[in-house]
Amino acid sequence: MTLKAIVLLSGGLDSTTTLAMAKSLGYDLFAISFNYGQRHKIELERAKTVAREIQTKEHRIINIDLRQFGGSALTDDIDVPTHRGNEEMSTSIPITYVPARNTIFLSYALAYAEVIQCNNIFIGVTSVDYSGYPDCRPEFITAFEILANLATKAGVEGMDRIKIHTPLIRMTKAEIIKEGLDLGIDYGLTHSCYDPNEAGLACGNCDSCLLRLKGFKKLGVEDPLKYY
Amino acid sequence: MTLKAIVLLSGGLDSTTTLAMAKSLGYDLFAISFNYGQRHKIELERAKTVAREIQTKEHRIINIDLRQFGGSALTDDIDVPTHRGNEEMSTSIPITYVPARNTIFLSYALAYAEVIQCNNIFIGVTSVDYSGYPDCRPEFITAFEILANLATKAGVEGMDRIKIHTPLIRMTKAEIIKEGLDLGIDYGLTHSCYDPNEAGLACGNCDSCLLRLKGFKKLGVEDPLKYY
Repeated sequence: MTLKAIVLLSGGLDSTTTLAMAKSLGYDLFAISFNYGQRHKIELERAKTVAREIQTKEHRIINIDLRQFGGSALTDDIDVPTHRGNEEMSTSIPITYVPARNTIFLSYALAYAEVIQCNNIFIGVTSVDYSGYPDCRPEFITAFEILANLATKAGVEGMDRIKIHTPLIRMTKAEIIKEGLDLGIDYGLTHSCYDPNEAGLACGNCDSCLLRLKGFKKLGVEDPLKYY
Repeated sequence: MTLKAIVLLSGGLDSTTTLAMAKSLGYDLFAISFNYGQRHKIELERAKTVAREIQTKEHRIINIDLRQFGGSALTDDIDVPTHRGNEEMSTSIPITYVPARNTIFLSYALAYAEVIQCNNIFIGVTSVDYSGYPDCRPEFITAFEILANLATKAGVEGMDRIKIHTPLIRMTKAEIIKEGLDLGIDYGLTHSCYDPNEAGLACGNCDSCLLRLKGFKKLGVEDPLKYY
């Protein structure tokens, strides 16, 4: 019997690579994406395309409204910081941080896992080339895994333990891209920008674009994505 | 400066008592309720009434759709089990369990806490007279508290730790009711039934009604609630 895997999929470079890695491990794929009032809605279109290309068995898009809390440049009318002419990225928690985002996303993934009886959840967080969000750290993931096994029927009925897989956690952006290219990903289908223009083109200047471009540059490969 | 407390409020007996207890401890109250496709929508009306009566500073109602996952008698078209003529309650996890519900609810409370800069979250779970849900156990709450402090800015910026308060966790239903009556709660405003009729009257036969009635009976006090 093929094992099921739930994969959190934003349509970005990291989550797309994670999806392809889960596929290469032989899992049946169940992708979950979130419409959370993000300003870059093109994400969800890319997530759908990627889910189709990598042959997920099911792709659920969950509507949640984090805007009702406010507090982030990714969902509110706060300017996304750019770094034109300034290669330094911020080291403190950036304004693009969305309160408790990964906690909420993983909670929904856990509900989905219980319903389809799946014990494997994949999330493409990385603690190397990342934006400094607290809920991307390995210790956060470990804590969530412990919680997941206490929160659910799995924890009390002797079923197999729920495992949170983070295949990218120790990889640099260049290593992630190399892995994805080896698995045949067309990164032209993905999307990473926090502040795309009306036509959906990436800015090339937000934290996320800078990390992505740096990764491709280090690898000596051209990013197939178009920037404005 | 008065400390803020976020209180998860369903409008039921337990969460209403929790709200009154937080009030009596001197906190400024911020209540959060969830419209999660539950069949007993009267809950939310009672939550609003209770929030007003106990003078919360703010009451947010979050729309989330757990029905998109299915799997519970509380949100799906599955019959809620009753116990007419049978005093025994089920000891395994009941069909009224909603997948990952408290994990999702606490995640939203955590997002709210980050935005309003509040370190105290109250939830009225109890592991004594309860329905056997895994996400009501003390070890689940402890795991969530650890997670909360890793998930948020609090965890990395040296702010005060987030605390998940569970004042009811070791109390019997009768003790909870006694505490609430001492604090002046009108339990006629609350609502506990999983399967109310069209007029909003409680059934008196679901797990939740049975626990409530047993608590009042043990205390020798009449439940002011009307049953059909």
